[in-house]
Amino acid sequence: MLEVQIRLYSPPFDFALRNYHKRVCLDLILFTPGGISRAELARQIGLTRSAITTIVNDMVESGLVREAEDGPVTIGRRPVLLEINPSRGYLVGVDIGATHLCLLVTDFASHVKYEIEKPFDISLPPAMCLEQVDQHFRNALAELHLSLEDVVGIGIGVPGPVVQDEGTVSYPPIMPGWDQYPIRKNLFNLWQRPVTVNNDAELGALGEWAHGAGRGERNLLYIKVGTGIGAGLLLDGRIYRGASGSAGEIGHITIISDGPLCTCGNYGCLEAVAGGYAIARQAQEAVRLGRRTQLAAIESVERITARDVASAARRGDLVAQQIIMEAGNQLGIAIASLINMFNPGMVVVGGGVAQVGDLLLQPIRQVVQQRSLHSAAQVVRINTALLGRRSSSMGAVVQALNTVLDQLVQD
Amino acid sequence: MLEVQIRLYSPPFDFALRNYHKRVCLDLILFTPGGISRAELARQIGLTRSAITTIVNDMVESGLVREAEDGPVTIGRRPVLLEINPSRGYLVGVDIGATHLCLLVTDFASHVKYEIEKPFDISLPPAMCLEQVDQHFRNALAELHLSLEDVVGIGIGVPGPVVQDEGTVSYPPIMPGWDQYPIRKNLFNLWQRPVTVNNDAELGALGEWAHGAGRGERNLLYIKVGTGIGAGLLLDGRIYRGASGSAGEIGHITIISDGPLCTCGNYGCLEAVAGGYAIARQAQEAVRLGRRTQLAAIESVERITARDVASAARRGDLVAQQIIMEAGNQLGIAIASLINMFNPGMVVVGGGVAQVGDLLLQPIRQVVQQRSLHSAAQVVRINTALLGRRSSSMGAVVQALNTVLDQLVQD
Repeated sequence: MLEVQIRLYSPPFDFALRNYHKRVCLDLILFTPGGISRAELARQIGLTRSAITTIVNDMVESGLVREAEDGPVTIGRRPVLLEINPSRGYLVGVDIGATHLCLLVTDFASHVKYEIEKPFDISLPPAMCLEQVDQHFRNALAELHLSLEDVVGIGIGVPGPVVQDEGTVSYPPIMPGWDQYPIRKNLFNLWQRPVTVNNDAELGALGEWAHGAGRGERNLLYIKVGTGIGAGLLLDGRIYRGASGSAGEIGHITIISDGPLCTCGNYGCLEAVAGGYAIARQAQEAVRLGRRTQLAAIESVERITARDVASAARRGDLVAQQIIMEAGNQLGIAIASLINMFNPGMVVVGGGVAQVGDLLLQPIRQVVQQRSLHSAAQVVRINTALLGRRSSSMGAVVQALNTVLDQLVQD
Repeated sequence: MLEVQIRLYSPPFDFALRNYHKRVCLDLILFTPGGISRAELARQIGLTRSAITTIVNDMVESGLVREAEDGPVTIGRRPVLLEINPSRGYLVGVDIGATHLCLLVTDFASHVKYEIEKPFDISLPPAMCLEQVDQHFRNALAELHLSLEDVVGIGIGVPGPVVQDEGTVSYPPIMPGWDQYPIRKNLFNLWQRPVTVNNDAELGALGEWAHGAGRGERNLLYIKVGTGIGAGLLLDGRIYRGASGSAGEIGHITIISDGPLCTCGNYGCLEAVAGGYAIARQAQEAVRLGRRTQLAAIESVERITARDVASAARRGDLVAQQIIMEAGNQLGIAIASLINMFNPGMVVVGGGVAQVGDLLLQPIRQVVQQRSLHSAAQVVRINTALLGRRSSSMGAVVQALNTVLDQLVQD
């Protein structure tokens, strides 16, 4: 049934109809689990078999798509499955976090060829940060014996609200000094290759949707719990960014109205009670109070991080476990609200803190069962990120590929 | 730029392309402020002038569309503006609330011909409630000297999560006894005319978007503050309902974790601290405590309603004003969270309680300025519903019209 959706009718008219059909074919080839045949493409798009054959042959000839070697065995003729040609070029995904950076290089079919995770400090001046990104990027290319020309697209994720058209961030709470800084432009100037900049949680949603826990979900929330807390929103099958690119900034919803001071200047924000800083601060307090915990063995109290707390918790440390579970409770309250608001089919919890797994997930699930409306709670599944720390960097690869393909079908 | 949005490509393929173009024309004719000409239709849709002329002439011949009598005076030739033919049939919009019912009859161009608002008790058995709806509907037809056949579509709004395909509600917190009750089926059996059932807040968003404060907005939240509290979500130009139709159920997000008991069984829900019941209860308490208020003049304390509080507040009663402002503060906290999450261009506050206007809106705006992220707060406008109590019933008319037009272009 059609809704009032005038503005949404635009996509088909932006492209020539033929390019549009080509683009839909590519998305179906890329993201249909188990692959797709020409016949199935024709059925799903509603074009004739011969129209699809023309489009597909065109893409096979240009080296964009190829026939997969093995289709599934069925009764009768085995359908020829199509796949994206992995050797069409390399893609790079970079997830810039507050304290760590992940960089992936994949082939054109998103198979990972190289991966690093390095400490990173986003509070340094942006120019210095991008210099480090450049260094890691060039190391990766050297390692793989690639030249800049081998890279067809680069996706960058950042932990703040992104202004899509500008490739900048706008008033980012945990990226002081980055407001309006020309991230995309400066990286493009360095590399002369297509660069896209997106919010890290949004890329997490995209990564988990394309390659992780959320395959085929139409309504997916990805909650990134790291130093900051953000949500990526996949609604009715599309990434939703809001009027100015800051949708999903759940780190700053009020959980305890007279709670601790947050980096954003308010009190009792979710991030201030359940984010990486909050977890580290609570652990430091526990050590200072002389509570019995393995964390007391860490050399200087003020250097205890959320990661230390998570690994102590995994080793059975009770104090660390309590801190993580309390963070889970607070996250649960926020996620229960999100579930009431968005009524998603799946919530994926990712980011550094989420790597602790069930210890965090258990209280979240429990609070959600208590606090979400029945009609929403009964349809939602809550899982940890299947891609682990890779969700956002894989999402950055997907976004880079998207942009490359948009360009290719128009050429 | 294309996103991963496979499922969204489906609308064009559901319709034959020609019907699809026809439907887009109709939406543009209906919802372009100031009207639209053939030339402008061609430009916006990206079809040739002659293709548009064929489509439009077809619709003029069949009596769906007509040429408006006066286009704007411009230099050169005056463009002929198109409009929907108002005499093509009547539409009915019914907004079933917890304590009141609104019913509108409009012509095909949505001009209101008849309107009533009556007390209503949704806690009565559904069959009795629908009998009342039927009575009001038949009175309206009698009043206008219409027969059932003159009505081409009926839209019904209900204050609960709607299962779209079934025309039922699912686990509705303030509609006990209505779970799975076949609302659409029973009304269709009574009237034998096309009936659509939608959530009331969703219809509020649609009504304000089409005819009210939110014209042309792509990202609009409509907050209905009545006995219950719900949000209607217009995201990227489309109504968003979630995985099972309960998106926007903000009445049950936790505001005060150890707050008062809510109808849903939890504690401290938004509805329990700022909804119509909460406002009435606080007023009753104030009277019992002997505070100086005009509300003490109401015959029996337990019959004081939110409406009484709102009208006392408008007459300058300090106690009533404090109660409304405190509700505004709590709503502000919830709306600030919504703004962080959805990053809308506009928030429209409607429903019975909102009719008190600035007294409620002032604290909301203030809390939002304090608590929303700068990047989201700077783009959002917060207004009261332009259609007043009519937002949802006008939305029901829009939805009825939508359904009729979907049908008509396929015939």
